[in-house]
Amino acid sequence: MKVKVAREAHFNAAHRLHNPNWTDEKNSQVFGKCNNPNFHGHNYKLIVEVKGEVNPETGYVIDLGDLAKIIKTKIEDRFDHKNLNLDTEEFKNLNPTAENIVVVIYNILRVELDNKYTLNIKLYETERNLAEYGGE
Amino acid sequence: MKVKVAREAHFNAAHRLHNPNWTDEKNSQVFGKCNNPNFHGHNYKLIVEVKGEVNPETGYVIDLGDLAKIIKTKIEDRFDHKNLNLDTEEFKNLNPTAENIVVVIYNILRVELDNKYTLNIKLYETERNLAEYGGE
Amino acid sequence: MKVKVAREAHFNAAHRLHNPNWTDEKNSQVFGKCNNPNFHGHNYKLIVEVKGEVNPETGYVIDLGDLAKIIKTKIEDRFDHKNLNLDTEEFKNLNPTAENIVVVIYNILRVELDNKYTLNIKLYETERNLAEYGGE
Amino acid sequence: MKVKVAREAHFNAAHRLHNPNWTDEKNSQVFGKCNNPNFHGHNYKLIVEVKGEVNPETGYVIDLGDLAKIIKTKIEDRFDHKNLNLDTEEFKNLNPTAENIVVVIYNILRVELDNKYTLNIKLYETERNLAEYGGE
Amino acid sequence: MKVKVAREAHFNAAHRLHNPNWTDEKNSQVFGKCNNPNFHGHNYKLIVEVKGEVNPETGYVIDLGDLAKIIKTKIEDRFDHKNLNLDTEEFKNLNPTAENIVVVIYNILRVELDNKYTLNIKLYETERNLAEYGGE
Amino acid sequence: MKVKVAREAHFNAAHRLHNPNWTDEKNSQVFGKCNNPNFHGHNYKLIVEVKGEVNPETGYVIDLGDLAKIIKTKIEDRFDHKNLNLDTEEFKNLNPTAENIVVVIYNILRVELDNKYTLNIKLYETERNLAEYGGE
Repeated sequence: MKVKVAREAHFNAAHRLHNPNWTDEKNSQVFGKCNNPNFHGHNYKLIVEVKGEVNPETGYVIDLGDLAKIIKTKIEDRFDHKNLNLDTEEFKNLNPTAENIVVVIYNILRVELDNKYTLNIKLYETERNLAEYGGE
Repeated sequence: MKVKVAREAHFNAAHRLHNPNWTDEKNSQVFGKCNNPNFHGHNYKLIVEVKGEVNPETGYVIDLGDLAKIIKTKIEDRFDHKNLNLDTEEFKNLNPTAENIVVVIYNILRVELDNKYTLNIKLYETERNLAEYGGE
Repeated sequence: MKVKVAREAHFNAAHRLHNPNWTDEKNSQVFGKCNNPNFHGHNYKLIVEVKGEVNPETGYVIDLGDLAKIIKTKIEDRFDHKNLNLDTEEFKNLNPTAENIVVVIYNILRVELDNKYTLNIKLYETERNLAEYGGE
Repeated sequence: MKVKVAREAHFNAAHRLHNPNWTDEKNSQVFGKCNNPNFHGHNYKLIVEVKGEVNPETGYVIDLGDLAKIIKTKIEDRFDHKNLNLDTEEFKNLNPTAENIVVVIYNILRVELDNKYTLNIKLYETERNLAEYGGE
Repeated sequence: MKVKVAREAHFNAAHRLHNPNWTDEKNSQVFGKCNNPNFHGHNYKLIVEVKGEVNPETGYVIDLGDLAKIIKTKIEDRFDHKNLNLDTEEFKNLNPTAENIVVVIYNILRVELDNKYTLNIKLYETERNLAEYGGE
Repeated sequence: MKVKVAREAHFNAAHRLHNPNWTDEKNSQVFGKCNNPNFHGHNYKLIVEVKGEVNPETGYVIDLGDLAKIIKTKIEDRFDHKNLNLDTEEFKNLNPTAENIVVVIYNILRVELDNKYTLNIKLYETERNLAEYGGE
């Protein structure tokens, strides 16, 4: 009997899309206004989904308070009110698209969680744009 | 050609998380403020997802008006404005975590629906906390 | 130049609508299922609006971090995961309707804020039901 | 490493549910007020989900600006501010239920996208009613 | 001590913007795609705000169940799943813009409510477009 | 007969809160993580409210399409995907708090609109933080 539980979190960050191997012209052509050298920013909404057996003692798949603490320590403290390109190790050499951010978050959280859990991550860059990754 | 349709519903209920086999101390440690003996409560948001073939006569997978009536009779009338621990048979001896509630709702609705349908249930306990169960 | 700022907060509580001066029959007739003696509950969404001059040094009407701390200490810690009827001084002898709750919250926060600020409180009991009070 | 990205769009349209092979009585019985011969309407919310490999050069699965243009040209221009029954080829002889609309949109967009992408479509007819189709 | 309470409701309708005193060309120029002779439609979201004294016996400004019934009988039954131009008396000779609809709804509800109440109506035509009228 | 209409828009920008007349220590103490020298960012949600008489010819207070174009040209093109501190004239010497941004937007739009209209601006910096200014 496997149940999925999910917890929402948020971080507000600046970023710039840029490929250092390309000319400025090509960067501007591909990334448009997202290539602004002075950065722009987003309120990222993160949904962490964990699937597993329900523990008959607690009725929990995982204590969502514990999960919230992991998300706070490992994701929010790392990325909230940061410049993703300048202030983080993860995106110093990796373009901070929603796709790359969601994979990075998956990899950070995957090692924090027991292997008995399935993990899936959704990341809203805006209300209308989403990236999602489940490790496949 | 299988299409999934979904219908949203709501119920507002009181509950308390508690394991009667544990000491008060352990209950308080594991469930924290959710263990308050006087109960607290939530606006539960329920999403019932039904997947099946589209009927070429009606263009419907299932009549959502019929589905809404089943949800009203079997779920909302049972749980809305109730104390889950005290007023329901289902949670007299089952801890009313979101995980357990979503499984109970799945089981209630599963027998109401033809086997040709796949059923999946999502239950938001708050805007930021979700449990989901599809019978696996 | 007066600007209004607003901060959202949440608390999840059980309550029961009941007038002890009435018969059970009249209570049931007036309050319907909200009169359930075993309580039901809600996710209350609170919006605290503060209006005042913009401080030219900070660009702030009020530091929203400070406001959030006041809301946390004075409202969330008092009402979150509580039974409003049984666990609070405020509603021991006051019916915890959304109207009465919003007035109580206004009065608690009014004395915490400098008189130079105008205060207005919105309280969503459900997504579709709201009470609002501004001290008039 | 497959990531899913999603883009939201909207169109506002009139429609009527009706099966021309049935009597008026049966149409009225099955489709109720949705059978109104003078039509009614909805704000349709569309979510287009595309899954594929992340391009290491761009960090994109697909350029969401390009995807938004395809949705604009192929879906919004076709259905927005239209009467689905009278103004479109697709629903001249097909009942415009949410189920049929979501399949039509899937088929239109499927041929616009490279086969390396998996496509899934969600269509909200109202905030509480959804149809979803992924080509299976 | 005056408190405002609010109740949300919905109706889904078809309409067309058109001034019969104008040429087709001018109608098309002014109303654009909203002038489509075959109609388009919306999910209208209605918020009815009522302000008054809190009754010390009930703790209510007005019984929101009673208000919901008035909205159901007088507004939803009248406009839901209707063509505003063809199926209603109110918009046979009045252009069904959001502004005109909100004034019509205000006038219908104003006579249903005691004069001791202040009434304000908000009408969302889409998530991003609103009209609001308070009788001034 | 005055009706208020409102239109929602969005822009995503980077910013930093900083007072150049203060020491780094005081800036850090007052603005906390919002003072990050490398910037952070937000999805700003803007609601422009315009109140006026309903034109009996059109049924409009103002053509929302025209209003949307003004918002696009004067606000979105100016601030979207920009660094408010570095890329704009308005915030080169003005701290880009939500309060200051909402006043700047009010002043920009006020001169674009006829004096017969009342203007009010709401700006959400996050889902939970709002600033609002109406020219008083």
